[in-house]
Amino acid sequence: MKTNNSKIVDCTIRDGGLVNNWDFSVEFVQQLYAGLNDAGVDYMEIGYKNSPKLLKGADKAGPWRFLDDEFLRKVIPQKGHTKLSALVDIGRVDENDILPRSESLLDLIRVACYIKDVDKAIELVNIFHERGYETTINIMALSNVMEHELLEAFELIKDSVVDVVYIVDSYGSLDHKDILHLTEKFKKHLPNKRLGIHAHNNLQLAFSNTLIAAEQGVELLDASVYGMGRAAGNCPTELLVTHLKHTHYKLRPVLDVIEKLMIPLREKEEWGYIIPYMITGTLDEHPRSAMALRASEDKDKAVDFYDKLTTPEVSFDQK
Amino acid sequence: MKTNNSKIVDCTIRDGGLVNNWDFSVEFVQQLYAGLNDAGVDYMEIGYKNSPKLLKGADKAGPWRFLDDEFLRKVIPQKGHTKLSALVDIGRVDENDILPRSESLLDLIRVACYIKDVDKAIELVNIFHERGYETTINIMALSNVMEHELLEAFELIKDSVVDVVYIVDSYGSLDHKDILHLTEKFKKHLPNKRLGIHAHNNLQLAFSNTLIAAEQGVELLDASVYGMGRAAGNCPTELLVTHLKHTHYKLRPVLDVIEKLMIPLREKEEWGYIIPYMITGTLDEHPRSAMALRASEDKDKAVDFYDKLTTPEVSFDQK
Repeated sequence: MKTNNSKIVDCTIRDGGLVNNWDFSVEFVQQLYAGLNDAGVDYMEIGYKNSPKLLKGADKAGPWRFLDDEFLRKVIPQKGHTKLSALVDIGRVDENDILPRSESLLDLIRVACYIKDVDKAIELVNIFHERGYETTINIMALSNVMEHELLEAFELIKDSVVDVVYIVDSYGSLDHKDILHLTEKFKKHLPNKRLGIHAHNNLQLAFSNTLIAAEQGVELLDASVYGMGRAAGNCPTELLVTHLKHTHYKLRPVLDVIEKLMIPLREKEEWGYIIPYMITGTLDEHPRSAMALRASEDKDKAVDFYDKLTTPEVSFDQK
Repeated sequence: MKTNNSKIVDCTIRDGGLVNNWDFSVEFVQQLYAGLNDAGVDYMEIGYKNSPKLLKGADKAGPWRFLDDEFLRKVIPQKGHTKLSALVDIGRVDENDILPRSESLLDLIRVACYIKDVDKAIELVNIFHERGYETTINIMALSNVMEHELLEAFELIKDSVVDVVYIVDSYGSLDHKDILHLTEKFKKHLPNKRLGIHAHNNLQLAFSNTLIAAEQGVELLDASVYGMGRAAGNCPTELLVTHLKHTHYKLRPVLDVIEKLMIPLREKEEWGYIIPYMITGTLDEHPRSAMALRASEDKDKAVDFYDKLTTPEVSFDQK
C-alpha cells in the first residue's frame, strides 16, 4: 500500500461542532491541536469561516463556527507543523472576512458545495487562491449525482486553480466498490488535480473506504478523533494514524486526546454507529430525519422510523 | 458483486455469550430465532456443544454454553428455514454427547481450532460428518500463522470430509489487503472446499472485510445482531442483510430484534469499538488484556495500557 503521500485532515472541531453547536472550550481546542501536532497530523480544520451576518442563530454557536483571525491567534499562539484549515459554504461566506494568508494563521480554505454550485465554488476558490491559501472543492452528496452533472463539473474544475478536489460521502452510503468507481472517474477526468476523501460512518465503512481511497492515490484524508462528526461521524483519526503504512504518524498522542477529551465528551454528546443513522445510510439519504428522531422521545424506535422512510405514501408531515 | 451464494451465520448467542456468560433467557433466544428466520438468515449459531464435564465454572454459565438436545427442542418447538449451528472446541467436546443429526435440531457443527490442532479438528469433523451433520473447521488467529504451518494444514484439510473452511480474524487486526491475500491462498490450496469468514471489529473493519471476502466467493459469512460478540464484537448482521446485493434478506425483522432485545441489552453489557480493543487489534494480539482492563477501574486509561503493551521490558505481571 503506497500511502506515504497521505495527508490527514482532522475535522474534529469543524464537523464535530455540528454535534455540539461548536461548544468547545479554548483549552479543549488547544489540547487537541497539541495532540494532533505531536501525532504528525498534517491539517487541523479548526472551524468554519462563514459569516455570522449570513446565517441565522449565529449568536448561539461557539466561536469555531465563525472563525476570527485575531481570536485564532490567541488560541494558537505557537503554531507547530500541523497546518490550519477552515471550511466555507456557498452563500454563507463574506469574502471581505478573508485576510491575505500572510496575515492569517489559516493555511487551507475548503469550499463545500453541491454539484450544481461548482461554478460558485470555483469563484470563491479564485479569491482564496489569489490571497495565497491552499484550496479545495468538496463535492458533497456524490451518491446522488448523475453522470452528466459530474462530467460538466469536471470540465469547470480541471481548468480552475483549485489544488485538491474532494469525494464527499455525505450520507455514509458508499462502499469500497463505489469508492473504486469514483476514484477512477476523478483520476481520469482530473489528471492535474490532487484528490481528497471525506467519509461518513453510517455503515461502519468510513475507515475502510478511506484506506481504499488512499491506496488509489487519494492524498487528503479527512478524519476526526474518536470519529466525532455529525450523526454517524467520520473516519476515526486514531485508526488512520495507526494503520497507514509507511508514514510517520504516532498513535499515542491521539490516544491521549481520546482519554482526556473525547471519552468525557462522548458521555454528554452523541455520535457514531447508531441505528437510525445506519438506516438513512443504507437508504442513501441525508441523516436529518434520523437526527430529529434521536432528539425525540422515540429515539430508539427503529422499526417505525424505517417504515416511515420506506413507505412511499407516508410522509413525516402526515404522521 | 456476485454474493448471491452468500449464507449468513448469525453468532449472536454463541459469540455474544462470551460477553454475558450466556445469560440469555429462553424468550430472548426464541425472539431472536423468529427475527432471524423472518429476515431470511441462513444459520443461527445457538451456542456451544462443549461438555460441562470438560470445563471449569460450567455451573455458572447459561444453557447456551453446553447445548442439550432435549432442551433445544423445547426452545425451538417449530423450526423455520433458519438452520441451527453449534460450535465446539478441541479438547472440550465429548463425542458421546453428539446425537445423530436425525435426532437433533442441530444442522451444522463447527470446530474452532488453532493451526496446530487442525489434525484433531479433522478427527472431530469425521465423527460429526458420520453422524449426518454439515461441518466446518474454523482456523483461529490466522494473522499469527506462518506460511508453512498453513500449507501443512491445507494438505490435511483438502483430503478431509469437512464442508467449509473458515478464515477467522480472531484479533480483528486484518484489513482488506490481508483478506484478499488469505482468500486467494485458501482458494488456491483448497479448490474443493467452500469457505467462510469470521471477522472481529477492533479496527471497524469487520463489515468491510466480510463484504470483500463475499466478493471473492467466500460463502459462509459470520455476523451477530448489533455486532454483539466478545470484546469489539463481530460484523453486524443488520449491515449484511441490508447491503449484500442480489439476495433476499430483509432488514426490518433485524431492526425489530435490535429495538426489542439488543438496545436494552447493550445498556447492561459492553461490546463494540472501544479504544483498548482497538489497541489490541492494531497490535495484532488477543483482546484478553483489554478485557481485563475494561473490567478494572482503569478502564479508560488508554495511554497507560498502550505503553504497557508496547514497552518490551514491562510485563503485566510486573506492574
